[in-house]
Formats: sequence, structure tokens, C-alpha cells
Amino acid sequence: MGLFGHLKARNVDGTGGLVTVVVQDRQVRDVLMVAYANEEAFEKTLETGLAHYYSTSRKRLWLKGEESGNTQRVHEVLVDCDGDAVVYVVDQKGGACHTGHRTCFFRRVEDGKLAQFQDIVFDPGKAYGRK
Amino acid sequence: MGLFGHLKARNVDGTGGLVTVVVQDRQVRDVLMVAYANEEAFEKTLETGLAHYYSTSRKRLWLKGEESGNTQRVHEVLVDCDGDAVVYVVDQKGGACHTGHRTCFFRRVEDGKLAQFQDIVFDPGKAYGRK
Repeated sequence: MGLFGHLKARNVDGTGGLVTVVVQDRQVRDVLMVAYANEEAFEKTLETGLAHYYSTSRKRLWLKGEESGNTQRVHEVLVDCDGDAVVYVVDQKGGACHTGHRTCFFRRVEDGKLAQFQDIVFDPGKAYGRK
Repeated sequence: MGLFGHLKARNVDGTGGLVTVVVQDRQVRDVLMVAYANEEAFEKTLETGLAHYYSTSRKRLWLKGEESGNTQRVHEVLVDCDGDAVVYVVDQKGGACHTGHRTCFFRRVEDGKLAQFQDIVFDPGKAYGRK
């Protein structure tokens, strides 16, 4: 049994067998994104050192950066007490967010409203091409 | 409509209406824990400045530290691009983990195995009393 068998996978929106993945930048230490991994994605990440996820929208294995080139080199994988969440500590190429921001968390609550507080670092139109 | 209505809540293990909450230490910047919030928990957090969650095991509102005293003062709330995950940036009293560790992520993958790399910072037997 691989390491994933020791984790406590959950069912998210009808897709079973997923752990939550928090992605943290190794240098800046900000949270870049939150995604999910199934067994295949988790084992591929450990095997290749590149962050893989299970895309709950596309319902398939997803190598981060496969289209944009913005891959994540995984430096360390942390596991929480009850085994339903992991942290990938990564070196992020370009930016993590499909919107062109460095991190998906580019908005914060200010006076009860959502306010954007970060600029984009790459052109999502170019990175994601013909979409 | 409160701010939660602008988020994209998910169904986790049969409990609908939840966003994933990543909890990050404001000073050290490590990830302390991952939990969930429903509308009530999210709004109570914004209202009081103390981290509230929806406990998926106890199926009720959960003020972090209600039993142990290890509360989390929420300094900032970040929201991700698709609105299904938030980050609470907190000042953590004591430790975040029910095991007595500072963070729930006290284990990491080493040579394909889970290895503990952090010591406990409080006595969980005392903090959680008669359990």
C-alpha cells in the first residue's frame, strides 16, 4: 500500500477519495492555492517532484502548469493530524492562479467586502492561449 | 446577503455549504490547520475576530479554543479566485493541534514514510481535560 492509503480521503462534491492540498510558497511562505489530490495525483507528485492534483471541474489528473508552464517543484510534503489535508511546499514558476496572479488568494475581506490587493504577474490570455 | 453568499460553498462528506479554511500563523507563517466553515461560522468569525468553524465530526459550530483555551485571533481573511477556500491569518494561543503540537502539520513525507518532525508545545491531556 502506498502512502495515500494511510491518509483519510474525503468526498468533495460527489468525488470521493480526495485529500485537500494547501500549496505554500517555499520562499515567501504565502498560501498560493488550495486544490485536491486523489491517490494517483498524490503518488505522481511524490514520484516526479512536480505538483499533481485531481481537477474536480475537469474530473481528471492535472499536472499543475501543463498548459501555462507554471509548474510547481515540490520541496516538501506535510501531512496533518487526521490525514485529510496535506501541504505541498513549492517553488512556483510564474504565478499559481489562472487569473494571472501570483497566488489565488489575491482578495481579502475589508469592511465586509472583498477587495483585491495584489497585481497580476503574468498575462493569463497568453499563458492559457486559445481559451 | 452576507459575504458568505458570494463564496462557492462545497459539499464535504455529505455536509453541504462549506468553504475550506486554511489557517496560517501571522508571525511564523506556517500552516497551522485546515478546517471548514459554513455561513454561521464564517460570519461569526468576521463579527468577533475569533476563528469559528463548522466541525464536520461533531456537526456543529465550533469556536476554536472553546475547550482548550487555544483561541485564534483572526488578523486577516483572504479569499481565493473561485471562492471555495479562504485563509484565516491568525495569532494562535498555545498550539493549534489537539495532539498538543503547534501546528496540525507536524509530520512530513521522508523516504516514502510519514515522519514526525515537531515536538508538542502543550499537554493535550490537561488542555482537553476529562476526555
